[in-house]
Amino acid sequence: MKKKSYGLPPESIVFIGEKKTEKTIINVFEINSESHKEYSLESIDQLKIKKDDTHYWVEIIGLHDTSVLEKIGERFKIHPLILADIANTEHYPKLDITDGFNFIELKLIDYSLTENSITSEQVAFLIGEKILFTFLERETDIFNFVKDRIRGKHTKLTNYSVEFISYSLIDSIVDKYYYILGEIGEKIEELEDEMLKGPEPKTMDIIHNLKRNIIFIRKAVWPLREIIRKLEMDVRNDTNPLGIYYKDLYDHIIQVIDTIETQRELVAEMMDIYLSSVSFKLNDIIKVLTIISTIFIPLTFISSIYGMNFHFMPELTWKWGYPLIMFIMFSIGLSMLIYFKRKKWF
Amino acid sequence: MKKKSYGLPPESIVFIGEKKTEKTIINVFEINSESHKEYSLESIDQLKIKKDDTHYWVEIIGLHDTSVLEKIGERFKIHPLILADIANTEHYPKLDITDGFNFIELKLIDYSLTENSITSEQVAFLIGEKILFTFLERETDIFNFVKDRIRGKHTKLTNYSVEFISYSLIDSIVDKYYYILGEIGEKIEELEDEMLKGPEPKTMDIIHNLKRNIIFIRKAVWPLREIIRKLEMDVRNDTNPLGIYYKDLYDHIIQVIDTIETQRELVAEMMDIYLSSVSFKLNDIIKVLTIISTIFIPLTFISSIYGMNFHFMPELTWKWGYPLIMFIMFSIGLSMLIYFKRKKWF
Amino acid sequence: MKKKSYGLPPESIVFIGEKKTEKTIINVFEINSESHKEYSLESIDQLKIKKDDTHYWVEIIGLHDTSVLEKIGERFKIHPLILADIANTEHYPKLDITDGFNFIELKLIDYSLTENSITSEQVAFLIGEKILFTFLERETDIFNFVKDRIRGKHTKLTNYSVEFISYSLIDSIVDKYYYILGEIGEKIEELEDEMLKGPEPKTMDIIHNLKRNIIFIRKAVWPLREIIRKLEMDVRNDTNPLGIYYKDLYDHIIQVIDTIETQRELVAEMMDIYLSSVSFKLNDIIKVLTIISTIFIPLTFISSIYGMNFHFMPELTWKWGYPLIMFIMFSIGLSMLIYFKRKKWF
Amino acid sequence: MKKKSYGLPPESIVFIGEKKTEKTIINVFEINSESHKEYSLESIDQLKIKKDDTHYWVEIIGLHDTSVLEKIGERFKIHPLILADIANTEHYPKLDITDGFNFIELKLIDYSLTENSITSEQVAFLIGEKILFTFLERETDIFNFVKDRIRGKHTKLTNYSVEFISYSLIDSIVDKYYYILGEIGEKIEELEDEMLKGPEPKTMDIIHNLKRNIIFIRKAVWPLREIIRKLEMDVRNDTNPLGIYYKDLYDHIIQVIDTIETQRELVAEMMDIYLSSVSFKLNDIIKVLTIISTIFIPLTFISSIYGMNFHFMPELTWKWGYPLIMFIMFSIGLSMLIYFKRKKWF
Amino acid sequence: MKKKSYGLPPESIVFIGEKKTEKTIINVFEINSESHKEYSLESIDQLKIKKDDTHYWVEIIGLHDTSVLEKIGERFKIHPLILADIANTEHYPKLDITDGFNFIELKLIDYSLTENSITSEQVAFLIGEKILFTFLERETDIFNFVKDRIRGKHTKLTNYSVEFISYSLIDSIVDKYYYILGEIGEKIEELEDEMLKGPEPKTMDIIHNLKRNIIFIRKAVWPLREIIRKLEMDVRNDTNPLGIYYKDLYDHIIQVIDTIETQRELVAEMMDIYLSSVSFKLNDIIKVLTIISTIFIPLTFISSIYGMNFHFMPELTWKWGYPLIMFIMFSIGLSMLIYFKRKKWF
Repeated sequence: MKKKSYGLPPESIVFIGEKKTEKTIINVFEINSESHKEYSLESIDQLKIKKDDTHYWVEIIGLHDTSVLEKIGERFKIHPLILADIANTEHYPKLDITDGFNFIELKLIDYSLTENSITSEQVAFLIGEKILFTFLERETDIFNFVKDRIRGKHTKLTNYSVEFISYSLIDSIVDKYYYILGEIGEKIEELEDEMLKGPEPKTMDIIHNLKRNIIFIRKAVWPLREIIRKLEMDVRNDTNPLGIYYKDLYDHIIQVIDTIETQRELVAEMMDIYLSSVSFKLNDIIKVLTIISTIFIPLTFISSIYGMNFHFMPELTWKWGYPLIMFIMFSIGLSMLIYFKRKKWF
Repeated sequence: MKKKSYGLPPESIVFIGEKKTEKTIINVFEINSESHKEYSLESIDQLKIKKDDTHYWVEIIGLHDTSVLEKIGERFKIHPLILADIANTEHYPKLDITDGFNFIELKLIDYSLTENSITSEQVAFLIGEKILFTFLERETDIFNFVKDRIRGKHTKLTNYSVEFISYSLIDSIVDKYYYILGEIGEKIEELEDEMLKGPEPKTMDIIHNLKRNIIFIRKAVWPLREIIRKLEMDVRNDTNPLGIYYKDLYDHIIQVIDTIETQRELVAEMMDIYLSSVSFKLNDIIKVLTIISTIFIPLTFISSIYGMNFHFMPELTWKWGYPLIMFIMFSIGLSMLIYFKRKKWF
Repeated sequence: MKKKSYGLPPESIVFIGEKKTEKTIINVFEINSESHKEYSLESIDQLKIKKDDTHYWVEIIGLHDTSVLEKIGERFKIHPLILADIANTEHYPKLDITDGFNFIELKLIDYSLTENSITSEQVAFLIGEKILFTFLERETDIFNFVKDRIRGKHTKLTNYSVEFISYSLIDSIVDKYYYILGEIGEKIEELEDEMLKGPEPKTMDIIHNLKRNIIFIRKAVWPLREIIRKLEMDVRNDTNPLGIYYKDLYDHIIQVIDTIETQRELVAEMMDIYLSSVSFKLNDIIKVLTIISTIFIPLTFISSIYGMNFHFMPELTWKWGYPLIMFIMFSIGLSMLIYFKRKKWF
Repeated sequence: MKKKSYGLPPESIVFIGEKKTEKTIINVFEINSESHKEYSLESIDQLKIKKDDTHYWVEIIGLHDTSVLEKIGERFKIHPLILADIANTEHYPKLDITDGFNFIELKLIDYSLTENSITSEQVAFLIGEKILFTFLERETDIFNFVKDRIRGKHTKLTNYSVEFISYSLIDSIVDKYYYILGEIGEKIEELEDEMLKGPEPKTMDIIHNLKRNIIFIRKAVWPLREIIRKLEMDVRNDTNPLGIYYKDLYDHIIQVIDTIETQRELVAEMMDIYLSSVSFKLNDIIKVLTIISTIFIPLTFISSIYGMNFHFMPELTWKWGYPLIMFIMFSIGLSMLIYFKRKKWF
Repeated sequence: MKKKSYGLPPESIVFIGEKKTEKTIINVFEINSESHKEYSLESIDQLKIKKDDTHYWVEIIGLHDTSVLEKIGERFKIHPLILADIANTEHYPKLDITDGFNFIELKLIDYSLTENSITSEQVAFLIGEKILFTFLERETDIFNFVKDRIRGKHTKLTNYSVEFISYSLIDSIVDKYYYILGEIGEKIEELEDEMLKGPEPKTMDIIHNLKRNIIFIRKAVWPLREIIRKLEMDVRNDTNPLGIYYKDLYDHIIQVIDTIETQRELVAEMMDIYLSSVSFKLNDIIKVLTIISTIFIPLTFISSIYGMNFHFMPELTWKWGYPLIMFIMFSIGLSMLIYFKRKKWF
């Protein structure tokens, strides 16, 4: 979370975050029971709303130009605090159920398996009676599948209402979480295999990275549980066919959270395994040092005795002195080895 | 959790998991107050439902052929989202109480004591008014006992309704959890005995495996608590004699969860004991190294002094020089030993 | 928890546990406002119930002969699932409030201070309107005090109803928990004193044992909190004078649980102290090794230089070579000692 | 918690604890809107209660003589279980709101900054309509301030009811907790300063002591939260001016608990700092050993080579052999030093 | 928390804390729909309240002179317990909703990035119908922005009521928390970069400092969650336009708390990384020691054998004895190196 300054009135619409696209793009999907139209606008002022039962999905890509937000706010009577939340792309997931519009803010997550790193973007939804605004920081392919279904490719949308479209978009985002957790799961399995070969310093970094990624995803996903539950309750009151869809989505979110918790435990477990294998390896090394030192230090002492230059050292003149001392040293070394073996030191 | 792709509509019935059987088998039990019939079907289309009070248990083994699911969905008006859940064998335990059918998904767990490994499969139940569908990934003997009771072997079922049959099947599954936890309990005791002999690297692996197995079982069992509670409440409203059975089952689940938590604590405790015994052993080794080094390093220094080749070293020419120095060295070594003994170093 | 087999119908009355007594003993206390009678029965069939306000306490000792349970079940219409719970002595504490009988299952705990080990047995209560059954695995003296009060020794029971007798019996059991925790408290204090003398390997075992014992007691006591609370609520509705007794009992259970939690913290604390004292001792040993090695290794190197046999080593022929080198070595050793002392290494 | 015996009826009034005073003292404060009287009684039988609106505070010091309790119990119809709780000075804080009397039991804590040790005593309150009994184990000055306010010193009590007096007494006790936590806070700061000088073994003991003291205080204070909340609720229903006082007291208790939790975290933090500083110091020592050994062990080997007595060792006869080898050894030593320096080993 | 004394009546208005300003300053903002006035007072007695719809914000800076508090208390009928809380600047955040005034106490936090240290001050709010008192310990610039908005600079306040002003002031304080957490976030990132260069002892101190700072902020922020929620609920009942503002503020507080928790996890994570990198470095050093010692200790032993002065050592007289032994020693050293390399010791 970054906040460049404080002391601004809470309603200020200030873009917080990196500018991720050059120009603000405005795509409109105009859908009714018979057909659908698709076009881009230069400015939000050009948007014309028909009075019949046509539904509109207005996709706005790029948030750095806050004037678009201001215009939408004026025309559709959105509270400035909500516009401020849209502009603040560091905001955490939230849901505001108001009279005119339901406001939803989610995190779109992307995971790079090779770099083991997470990137995230904000998506905001303003769901009105017949109009849906989505706000993205930059172009992404996450919504293409829903667009294709609107266009009639693959399986056509059975329900062209903005409520169903927004459900489908949120479902795509949650599906992406699933997918990413699947990839992280693969990364964990990969790591487990690698760890069998023995611990390496970089393994540590990967585990720490995984941990941080999981903290990050958890932070993005956790609030969704409450958001989807509230959406389900909001929808249920209306005896809406969407009810079962939101219940299904809620189940998915629960399972995503469950998977995150399990992966956290597995990563913590891996960390333990890693640390204990590092310590085992060190123990092995220390044992070898101990055994070698413990055997040779006394032997070296003995030989250093007979390296002394005293004039009167009777053993030195014995004919069998040298073989005898060699035999004694060999016996000492051997009995120490046997002793250590018995104590299961190696 | 694995998800091969994202961007599918949520209602897609896609088989997720390994294919564990070649052909989809359909077994039907036709039961009424007077008799029971048992037969297999080639296709679900052949299933004929009588209008009297006959109850049907349709067992479907093998889920990779999703056309069976689709046919059942069409004929019995099952929501596609539920069919999608049945096909997704990576789903976690859940309960959906809907108008037509109650939908239950559980995990069937198997534990191999010798390999200390857990395998799991999904079982799905669709419990209608007079018809029960069970979906398994592959043939298993877990339901044989209930089948035998239907056939009148051992103690006959007192109640031939599909509600009672599904209760009995779920009870068998929970009984299996009991049994597995008993085996894990034995493994833990076995380990405790082994640990008394001294720590070995493979003990670590076994403990970690146990930990992972317990995490796994916990994940499979935890949601059952809520599921059984809801089933009990659902049944209680109907002043159903099943009430007390589900209460009993709920008690069992609580005890299973309780046992899992206790085993987690015990395994964590064993890990602590293991680590501290490893560290004690290392301490012992280091102490020996220290004592040997601390005694012989100074002695070697002394003898190396008299190995110097200075021409004027009066001690070297003394008649008693050698015995004297030997005596001094012996005294130093002995006093160090006594000192270490007093300090309780060994 | 052990379960020898799975696949039995849930109502099977199977004795699970060790057989702890040879013969099943049946003692009956027949109490009314004027007198009390006390006799043993060969078989439960001999039990005769008067229609007046006489209350009966039937004590059954030994559960391996499940036929006794079956007979009681038939005659008093106890649900087979409850009988199965009585026979399963591995069951955890539970309470079933049913129409005819209240069913309570508790753990009776015993602690041996010398062996620092816990043993446990099951006690089951079936509390009917005027009859109380208690089921024990083997003879124990825990109920003697209540029996004496019935017989009029010490302070006579003010209330001869089976509700009050069962309250008194449960109170005795909770009192025993108190007593055991007091003994464990003493063990902890004893250990604290011993630890002051320095760490010893066996201390570790005792701490681990304490930890396990506390886990065990906690598991047995924890569910009682809920059980006593429910009993209190059950009784309170009846504006029963027992209300204040159960409230008192509830307070005791809370205090027992509180003491268990405090003892857990203290034992965890002791473990920390123990581990840190072990590590301090090792540090001390390592410091001595370091100081000795660091001083003598360079000195030995110097003396080994003058042990070289080069023909041209001018120092060797100097008259003061030997004293000089001895002085240099002494100075080096001394300055190292001073340096280490300054760095507070010893 | 100690319990010398089990098997007593729950209503037995048995003094549990150390006898802390010789004689039981009974002080009476007789207060009404016009004046206050203060006198001591030999026996509780002498207490005379006027029928007007006079309030009585009866202070009983010393609990080993349980006959006083029994007499109060009989005369004021206190339930024997409450009397038993008063006599059991090992009881934890509790509140019983009954028809006649409110019963409160608290812990009075004292902390010795120099010895870093906690002592505790029990205070029991029996608050009737116009009479308040307080039970103390021994004389203490904690209530002097309230007594002085009754006597009219400092600020006079605005409200002479026993409810207000008992509130004031409880407030004094909570104030003492505040004060003690302040002292512990000072001890923690003192320790932080000391720790900067480097770790010493006794620091460990002080930290452990602090930890234990905080566990102890926490155990005594925690139940007060609930007790004060209930007292506040009890009082609030009566639209009593005491309401805001108890709310204030509740705030204080919350802050005391909050401070305890923060101090726990700080002490845990200090423990971490301590352990890591110990391990840093050991690392430093080990590094020195390593550097010295790693440099001199190879050098000693080289010089030992030229100490061998082979007849044919050409180097020995070279004129520059000795300086050459000295130079080689110096170069090896120096390059190792540089290597270690580069690796930032020292 | 410090409390200099105990035994004071709870209503005593005693200044607790450091005196942070010399003189008590009283600033008044007099605002109505048409204009605003701004002036300072010497004494609170000079404050004149008009009966029209003018709102007053009275800012009091400096709390050591408790007579100001007493005067306000008398004139506006503030309960002495609330005044005592204002004077006690060590109090934790709290909210009292009373009949006349709402009382809020918050912590104003400041963070110095360079010194990585936190300072805190208390701000108290007394919000009446048309009058707002704020109490500060010393002059601060946190409220300047709101003052500027009252004065009409930047964006003018849309709502001149004291409720809105107090909301704006609290919002500024929460904004400051945001800002500080942003700075701590930067410090964490800075540390992460530094840690890549290798562990240094001072890193430890910085991490511990961060931990303590986060504990501190958490303690100050946590109670706000409940306070803002209550304020929102209080306001919501009045169908007040402030409702959405307080909801927004509540969202901010949740996000601040969320960020604190994430930062705690990250700092804990960094601590783990730091400790493991320290231990890795030590392991590296120990490995080098082990390898060097393990290779040279046996070699030195061999050479010391041939340094013995036995008269009969045939090898010494061999012509190729010296080269042979050198070759043997070289072979032993080399094979040990290869062995260690294979074992991946370096």
